[in-house]
Amino acid sequence: MTRAELIHQIKTKKSFLCVGLDPDVEKIPKFLLKEDDPIFEFCRQIVDATADHCVSFKPNTAFFEAYGLSGITSLERTIKYIKQNYPDHFLIADAKRGDIGNTSSMYAKAFFKRLHADAITVAPYMGKDSVLPFLEFEKKWAIVLALTSNEGSSDFQLLETNGHQLYKEVLEKVASWGTEENLMFVVGATKAAMFRDIRSIVPNHFLLVPGVGAQGGSLAEVCKYGLTKDVGLLINSSRAIIYASNTENFAYAAGVEAEKVAKEMSIYF
Amino acid sequence: MTRAELIHQIKTKKSFLCVGLDPDVEKIPKFLLKEDDPIFEFCRQIVDATADHCVSFKPNTAFFEAYGLSGITSLERTIKYIKQNYPDHFLIADAKRGDIGNTSSMYAKAFFKRLHADAITVAPYMGKDSVLPFLEFEKKWAIVLALTSNEGSSDFQLLETNGHQLYKEVLEKVASWGTEENLMFVVGATKAAMFRDIRSIVPNHFLLVPGVGAQGGSLAEVCKYGLTKDVGLLINSSRAIIYASNTENFAYAAGVEAEKVAKEMSIYF
Repeated sequence: MTRAELIHQIKTKKSFLCVGLDPDVEKIPKFLLKEDDPIFEFCRQIVDATADHCVSFKPNTAFFEAYGLSGITSLERTIKYIKQNYPDHFLIADAKRGDIGNTSSMYAKAFFKRLHADAITVAPYMGKDSVLPFLEFEKKWAIVLALTSNEGSSDFQLLETNGHQLYKEVLEKVASWGTEENLMFVVGATKAAMFRDIRSIVPNHFLLVPGVGAQGGSLAEVCKYGLTKDVGLLINSSRAIIYASNTENFAYAAGVEAEKVAKEMSIYF
Repeated sequence: MTRAELIHQIKTKKSFLCVGLDPDVEKIPKFLLKEDDPIFEFCRQIVDATADHCVSFKPNTAFFEAYGLSGITSLERTIKYIKQNYPDHFLIADAKRGDIGNTSSMYAKAFFKRLHADAITVAPYMGKDSVLPFLEFEKKWAIVLALTSNEGSSDFQLLETNGHQLYKEVLEKVASWGTEENLMFVVGATKAAMFRDIRSIVPNHFLLVPGVGAQGGSLAEVCKYGLTKDVGLLINSSRAIIYASNTENFAYAAGVEAEKVAKEMSIYF
């Protein structure tokens, strides 16, 4: 998907919501466990119920990989289902990969060519040759971790280096390796005021913002500093939407939650 | 596997070689492609031919994941084969994972509980809560990336912060989260002189050293500064061993290469 196509989707829907798919058999409604593939069935129903209110889906690959072969099958079915039924949704494989060049190339082929994801999340620690292989595919994106929303983000990401914090060095350096057409950044929403600094480094790049909802970020705060004329934000919500209810109406409840967030977003259009 | 068990294996064999399994269908001998599962067959023969000369195997998960379901099947078969036939070999899943706590927990369960790997490689960028879930399993290990051997390692790992380079901060901080019984570090061998500094920070931890061979590090240099009374090193070699030949004798050739490295190592006992 190109940047122009993504922006068009967002402006048409007046939503920049990304629904994160983190399926956990301990948390999904019990009645689904009698299905042949409960994980896929859970994801399929969540996707159908929320698609109207979001522009992006983000399966977190760990939650599928944890179940081995059957989990990978569920992941591939989920991605295929989304691609077939909602081809205009931006599909992010949240895999947080990053390895030496030839290995990153293998991952890029796996996620872009075989699974047809639009984007993959990438860890920056190993540097340029670990990121570049993800930037070689037309209409595909690398979304590089800069500032994450977990407690441990302060351990290394906030360390002072080169006159600013490490995550700013990551933004600055990684931005120089690609373009606004193939690079985005993960920027955690628990530190909304930081968006001002972030926008001074990457004024136009799209930012994938986790942590609104279950992890405690505020949508208004993020929008105040993060929005650009092209919107420039994808706000992810996972648990607050997909686990809104664990009754038989779980999908409906997820749809209601997604709609609520989309409505909050619509005032910015 | 406990630290004492690993040391015992190393001292008995007089080898601290880890054979990295990076199976690439473009590189494996052509005649294997007629097998039902060429990737597994390649790995199985390499494992059989090199097991006597090494103490550890390290499947690089990317090379398997790139082939989707069939690749994951090959990975699971390879790991199972090693565990069944060479239970005393230290089995490292080279997956370079790292995510927020609940996601890292899913990965830890997948690799330790389901696949029975002894260790997994972990990326440090997301900090403490992304590493801790890998330290909660008895006799299991997290091997955290500190200094990698690729060109891009200088982009962030060598930046000055807190009065030393970032990789030293990673060594120091991560070492405080675990023990010498459940934590190792990846330290690239292309910078052998740095081992002196590294040993001043982590005098006793085991170090997994890639980059000897194809990536150009020197065994003697690494040993000079890296060896401890408990050996404290696992030296990985992948391409130089597994692609020593692509004829019908590829496994034999791999065995010869592994034996050569093991012989070089034996002088240190």
